[in-house]
Formats: sequence, C-alpha cells, structure tokens
Amino acid sequence: MPDPLDFYFDFSSPYGYLASEKIDELAARHGRTVRWRPILLGVVFKHTGAAPLTLVPLKGEYSEHDFSRSARFLDVPYEHPEKFPLATQHAARTYYWLYDQDAETARAFAHSVFRALYVEGRDVSDRDVVMEVAAGHGADRDTLAEALAAPALKARLKGEVDAALARGVFGSPYIVVDGEPFFGVDRLPQLERWLARGGF
Amino acid sequence: MPDPLDFYFDFSSPYGYLASEKIDELAARHGRTVRWRPILLGVVFKHTGAAPLTLVPLKGEYSEHDFSRSARFLDVPYEHPEKFPLATQHAARTYYWLYDQDAETARAFAHSVFRALYVEGRDVSDRDVVMEVAAGHGADRDTLAEALAAPALKARLKGEVDAALARGVFGSPYIVVDGEPFFGVDRLPQLERWLARGGF
Repeated sequence: MPDPLDFYFDFSSPYGYLASEKIDELAARHGRTVRWRPILLGVVFKHTGAAPLTLVPLKGEYSEHDFSRSARFLDVPYEHPEKFPLATQHAARTYYWLYDQDAETARAFAHSVFRALYVEGRDVSDRDVVMEVAAGHGADRDTLAEALAAPALKARLKGEVDAALARGVFGSPYIVVDGEPFFGVDRLPQLERWLARGGF
Repeated sequence: MPDPLDFYFDFSSPYGYLASEKIDELAARHGRTVRWRPILLGVVFKHTGAAPLTLVPLKGEYSEHDFSRSARFLDVPYEHPEKFPLATQHAARTYYWLYDQDAETARAFAHSVFRALYVEGRDVSDRDVVMEVAAGHGADRDTLAEALAAPALKARLKGEVDAALARGVFGSPYIVVDGEPFFGVDRLPQLERWLARGGF
C-alpha cells in the first residue's frame, strides 16, 4: 500500500477549498488516499513574511477575480465571502479533535466547513458556527466546547502547524506525495502526472 | 481582426520564460497575435511590497524546484541560472529599441535573451552580453550603445512599466486578453479556454 498524500490547507484559503473538492478523486484514480491537514496560514506567514493574497496591492484585486474564475474553470461552486480573510483556529482544532476519533468524519466535517464558507457564506470564524457544523456530523456540542477550551487541543494544532513549517509548507493548498511538494491548486495537473508516472 | 494579447514579463522571471515559449502558438490557435511587453519586476515590487520568489523563506527553495519541474511538465529546456535574480533593464530597453524599428526582430531578440539566460546560463544583466545577442539579430552595436546611454530609451521603458502598473500588472508572466487578466504560466489552460469560448 503506497503512502497517503498529505494535503495541507487553511480553511480560509479559496484555492485550498478548490483543491479540497478535487484531491480525493484525483488521488483515488492512482490508488492513493489523502491525509487532510488543516494549518493556520497566519502562523506560517509570520515565518515567511508573506501577507494574505487579497491584502497585497494590485494582486489582491486580481486574486478575488481569479478565485471565482478558477472555480468556474474547475466546475466548483464559489461565492467570495463578505468576511475575508477570517480566523480558522476553531475549525482547524475541531478538525483534529474529530480526526483523532475518526478520520472520515473529520474529512466530511472539513468539506462542510469549506462549503459553509464558500457556498453558503457563513462565518466559520465563529465558534458557534463551527460547533453547529460539527454537530451535523454527530459531534456532541458540550464535549466539543470543553475540548475547544482546553490547552490540549490548542497544542495539538500548534504541533501540526510547527510540523508543517518544519517540512517547508508555506501556503495553501500544499500537497506532498512521496516527499515531492506541490503548491497551489494549479499544480493538480502536475500532481496527476507525477502520480501516473511515478515522477517526471 | 481581434486585438492582440498583451504579454507582460520580466526577463529574469523563469515562469515568464516558460510562458514565452508557449504564448504565440497558443494565441495563434485562436487567431490571435501577441504583443510582448518586458517590464521590470523590481519597480513593480516596490509598489506591491512583494519580494523575488527565490528570496522568500521556504517558498524560495520550493520555487527553484518548481521552475525545473514546470519546465519538464511543459517540455521546455531549463537550467536554473547561477546568478539569479538579475537586473534586466539593458535587455528590456534593447527590446523596446528594436520593437520601435521592427516588432518581429524584437520578439526574436527576446526569445534569444530568455534562452541565453535559461538554457545557456549567460549573464544577460551584462550590457555587453545583451548587445551581442542584439547584434545576432542585426542590430548595429554602436547605434545601440548610444541609445542605451541616452535618456530617451530609459524613459521609454519607464513609461511601459508605469503603464503596466496602472493596468494592474503585479507579476510575470501577466497576460491580458480583451481586458481579462491572467497571471502565471499555470493560467495558460484558463487563457486557452477563454480564447476558445470567448470567456467562461
């Protein structure tokens, strides 16, 4: 059994969302599975000195245009959120809390968070919205609220972000297959060729 | 006759080079021509606050790896230059000097500059190297040397860069078709669909 792909993303990354709608099927076409790993770009950007795309002069305006066009190109529904960028630590922590119980539930939750933000326009920086989405996947609200308030889950996410940085992850989406890194949803065609040929 | 595409690039941009090897054929498939417009990313980055890719922590290392892989993916020869990034004002000014005499000669010169840098590893920041490449396309060295030393040609390039900035150009390659902007060699598939369908 070959190793799973590692799929790093931030829930507030539109290109991460677009990749999330494609990555599992792409990997499955080549007999691979995917390990989803939400991170916090805010922490990453402190290390690289980068700024959120939409806040960069000139590039910001283009990016919002490109998010929508790229979504149409990839046939994925997309509405740019009014509140953007936004904090995603509650969503990411809830993801790992679910993941440590059941990876498939966590993945379904991640899909729901992305779609809540980029299709339904919900404010997923709000802890209550995150809890509601998690409840839709069977999470017990009180237990989750307790976990979100405790230091252990914060440390769990911090460990993931630190490990991602140590591995060279600098943006979202960032996908690693057998040590080979691919940054950006526009690298999916290269990733696909890499999987098909075992490198190129 | 539909308008030509505008192809903005910096000679020191590897992704600009990759696009330069594809853009004319891509446009021709859809009955279009391309106006090549070298700019200076150094000036652009002062406006956007961006840094050259290879100097960004983590992203820099990835980028050098991605330049070569993207070149293989696109079937374009590529050797990462030892001296990089490098100044390209002599090459860009010479381009516009040639362009104002004959656009096709200027395009052939631009191809030669890119290939001198990314295939032959020559230092195209050197004025003498640029003059030699231009001489290979029939330029008279003395007349060119005079032009490169005079204020008019400097102003010519500055005007192009200012106009590009005013149009929102923030990187290389940056291609505009009928007002629609595409940034990055990885947007060529979107550009191709846009040309094929007249938008999407």
